[in-house]
Amino acid sequence: MQRYFVSETGWGTNEVTILGEDVHHINRVMRYKEGANIICNHPDGRAAICELLVITADSVQAEIKQWLNENVELPIQVTVAQGLPKGDKLELILQKGTELGAYAFIPFQAERSIVNWDKKKQEKKLIRFNKIVKEASEQSHRNQIPTIYSTITVERLIEESSKYDVKLYAYEEQAKVSDYKSFGTVLENVTITDKILICIGPEGGFSPKEAEKLNDNGFQAIRLGPRILRTETAALYALASISYHFEELRCDS
Amino acid sequence: MQRYFVSETGWGTNEVTILGEDVHHINRVMRYKEGANIICNHPDGRAAICELLVITADSVQAEIKQWLNENVELPIQVTVAQGLPKGDKLELILQKGTELGAYAFIPFQAERSIVNWDKKKQEKKLIRFNKIVKEASEQSHRNQIPTIYSTITVERLIEESSKYDVKLYAYEEQAKVSDYKSFGTVLENVTITDKILICIGPEGGFSPKEAEKLNDNGFQAIRLGPRILRTETAALYALASISYHFEELRCDS
Repeated sequence: MQRYFVSETGWGTNEVTILGEDVHHINRVMRYKEGANIICNHPDGRAAICELLVITADSVQAEIKQWLNENVELPIQVTVAQGLPKGDKLELILQKGTELGAYAFIPFQAERSIVNWDKKKQEKKLIRFNKIVKEASEQSHRNQIPTIYSTITVERLIEESSKYDVKLYAYEEQAKVSDYKSFGTVLENVTITDKILICIGPEGGFSPKEAEKLNDNGFQAIRLGPRILRTETAALYALASISYHFEELRCDS
Repeated sequence: MQRYFVSETGWGTNEVTILGEDVHHINRVMRYKEGANIICNHPDGRAAICELLVITADSVQAEIKQWLNENVELPIQVTVAQGLPKGDKLELILQKGTELGAYAFIPFQAERSIVNWDKKKQEKKLIRFNKIVKEASEQSHRNQIPTIYSTITVERLIEESSKYDVKLYAYEEQAKVSDYKSFGTVLENVTITDKILICIGPEGGFSPKEAEKLNDNGFQAIRLGPRILRTETAALYALASISYHFEELRCDS
């Protein structure tokens, strides 16, 4: 059944009002008629089966038929801090990261980040990024849409990191040394209530200066397998492994 | 150090001869001069540090200085059978799958595959695909380049599957039911010497008919986390989890 995230204001006691692009999707893309059922997600994470009552060109009214008792959210909060990569790689990370259960994304300007967005570009990008994570959340049947923060500096990221229980960063050098810290040993010491922050560098990774700063501020350097991963692959490896560890590996759950 | 995969014929006792596109890369992209060191990978998986001796427009001669004692190959052979997806998604799967350690790729024509390549297109695609996995292998410092087989039917895939010890397929329905088979429980019963074949459907997944055929032929349906993944994300989740399980999770290694 097709899902739509409906903002707080759209929820009445027994009815839901859908506005904006989703109306077009219901009308033109899905070609739903009155009486059809959809799933509406509430910003608080709950979801309900709703029956379409009135479909017009600019709004859709639906009746709440049944609240669902479902939750496919990753049981542990994982925020991905991504050093700004080239081209549209960040869009790939946001889309796939959302499918894989990321709780939030923090883009940051790393020393080796080549791109640099001015305020105007930043705002345009954020609108597009939020559309991508909303659609990915609907597609993967998530109960919540990940938050995307505006781009910050590494210094600011380090300040923000005090809000997290487990602070990790992928360091390419870890994939090359023999006495590396295994990602498994790190996750074995993580409990489900911990908030994880995992930082991925841009192309070329973190500079030694950045790595030192991160180490000095309680970040653990981890490797994500022995192969050198592209920046956009690293976040996906981390999220897939965390999902596997906490959702698929029985002995750890 | 930059890596180049050199075909069997390029290897002498003490020297390596590089031909083709890598010559351009050495000359024009890296702008190497005689005396510079590179790493050359032998098709058998070994690698050696080589010093550039003679660089011409169409060939490069290098001296083998030191054989390396390194191996970052996934310790278990994983072949990904991918139902032909739309657009250039297969290229993404090949590139990322190579970084994540896939041993081989088998594209197949699934019931719900929309694309259908004729022989000519197939050949052109294979050339491009092999370029992608070669570059991804070099970039991720792999010792071997994954094999890409030509596209086959599901029937042929089932015949081929007899060569594998563990036969899995990602079935969307598994992500929706509560008594699913966890991917972790599956991997816990896999040993490092097993050859794994993991089949991923195209957009829309496997048809019930295909799923039945796979079940009848000893394939286990698995879920890859509780969220519905896009086809190109499923293969990456599976490979990252297998890498995590066998390379990063100490208790299992």
